[in-house]
Amino acid sequence: MKPGLATLRAVPMFEPLSADLLGRINDITALVELAPRTELCRQGAIPDRLHILLDGQVALSGTAPDGTSAVVEVVHPVAHFVLAAVLMELPYLMSANAVTPSRLLLLDAAALRALLEQAPPLALTLMRAEAQDFRAMVRQVRDLKLRSAAQRLGCYLLALVADPIAPTADLRLPFDKGLLAAQLGCRQENLSRAFATLRTHGVETHGARVLLHDIARLREFAAPDDLADPLLRL
Amino acid sequence: MKPGLATLRAVPMFEPLSADLLGRINDITALVELAPRTELCRQGAIPDRLHILLDGQVALSGTAPDGTSAVVEVVHPVAHFVLAAVLMELPYLMSANAVTPSRLLLLDAAALRALLEQAPPLALTLMRAEAQDFRAMVRQVRDLKLRSAAQRLGCYLLALVADPIAPTADLRLPFDKGLLAAQLGCRQENLSRAFATLRTHGVETHGARVLLHDIARLREFAAPDDLADPLLRL
Repeated sequence: MKPGLATLRAVPMFEPLSADLLGRINDITALVELAPRTELCRQGAIPDRLHILLDGQVALSGTAPDGTSAVVEVVHPVAHFVLAAVLMELPYLMSANAVTPSRLLLLDAAALRALLEQAPPLALTLMRAEAQDFRAMVRQVRDLKLRSAAQRLGCYLLALVADPIAPTADLRLPFDKGLLAAQLGCRQENLSRAFATLRTHGVETHGARVLLHDIARLREFAAPDDLADPLLRL
Repeated sequence: MKPGLATLRAVPMFEPLSADLLGRINDITALVELAPRTELCRQGAIPDRLHILLDGQVALSGTAPDGTSAVVEVVHPVAHFVLAAVLMELPYLMSANAVTPSRLLLLDAAALRALLEQAPPLALTLMRAEAQDFRAMVRQVRDLKLRSAAQRLGCYLLALVADPIAPTADLRLPFDKGLLAAQLGCRQENLSRAFATLRTHGVETHGARVLLHDIARLREFAAPDDLADPLLRL
């Protein structure tokens, strides 16, 4: 099914593009709905489609030759993934699986590469999207190298707080603790230990519900970066 | 000092560009030589130049608000850095410092952004460069999440082996162990422990000299990825 111009225009990265260019993107794009656990792409394969998640959640994970596997990122809407692999025609570095029922745009990779050679505004748009992707990964590397698992968990929880000046917060984890541990780069038992450490910094948990009783104290412990990008994220 | 067309043409990413376009790049580029420990850019600042390292080594490092600091990457020639920050006009996520005497091209950021809007081939070139950068960071995240420090060290040593079918190797570490520990995302005492672990997999060290007595065995332990990109790297 074709997404249509209204759906395409609702994708932040496509907003500045002309109706003519959106029409050409529409011609090479399919709108699909997928059940949980559907595999969208597999590490090592050559990409045939750029994915843009409109609704749902997708886990990007990597597997080492010895079978160890880890979630590199959980994608939330609206966001693209596997852009770099599509642009370079190089194998996917990660596998992608739907975590929840998901709705996606699938753009034909070869047609997209052909289109962006003819349409400089699209190239500039994708260049900006790539830069955002890169910065998200740099942040992860910084986080993994600079912080303990408990600090990473603290930063993650602080990022879920919508109100920048709230002294306390009542949160719901957006996905299960297995996925959270993988995203934070620790084993599930270390995640439990991290939650235990955070208890002394005012963090109380009941299943997926998390209460932050003292955001200032948690911030002092976790030392989150003040380097967030503005929300231009595709 | 202007680099001149011959120097620019020797930068792999500029190879496909026309003489006219290289001339315009030359106009906005300075060639500089820097002493060790010179700071090239500082985390949090707005970028004014794209850097391309021609000779030497540059360390990119991140600092958390609590002062903890880690090397995110050591740049070897010929390679660019801070491209994403330059394209997005967003603050540097890392500081860059010369490790050794270094020779670099500095491209004026605002002029580069103006030029790539007028010159689609340059946009496509930079888009490919960004994709490579992204994939390098994804590999680091995979590595940090999937492997122990000893396995990461093993993968690092295996990547230094030039001959893909050699059964043994005699290597020299390209930089000191402090920098190596930071790049691998562990403390210096953990690096010593990682070297000790690798001894049982045929790795012998004498200062910066490293002997791999049994590459097959080390490969089995470290489980390196078979996902390296072809050497298009700018």
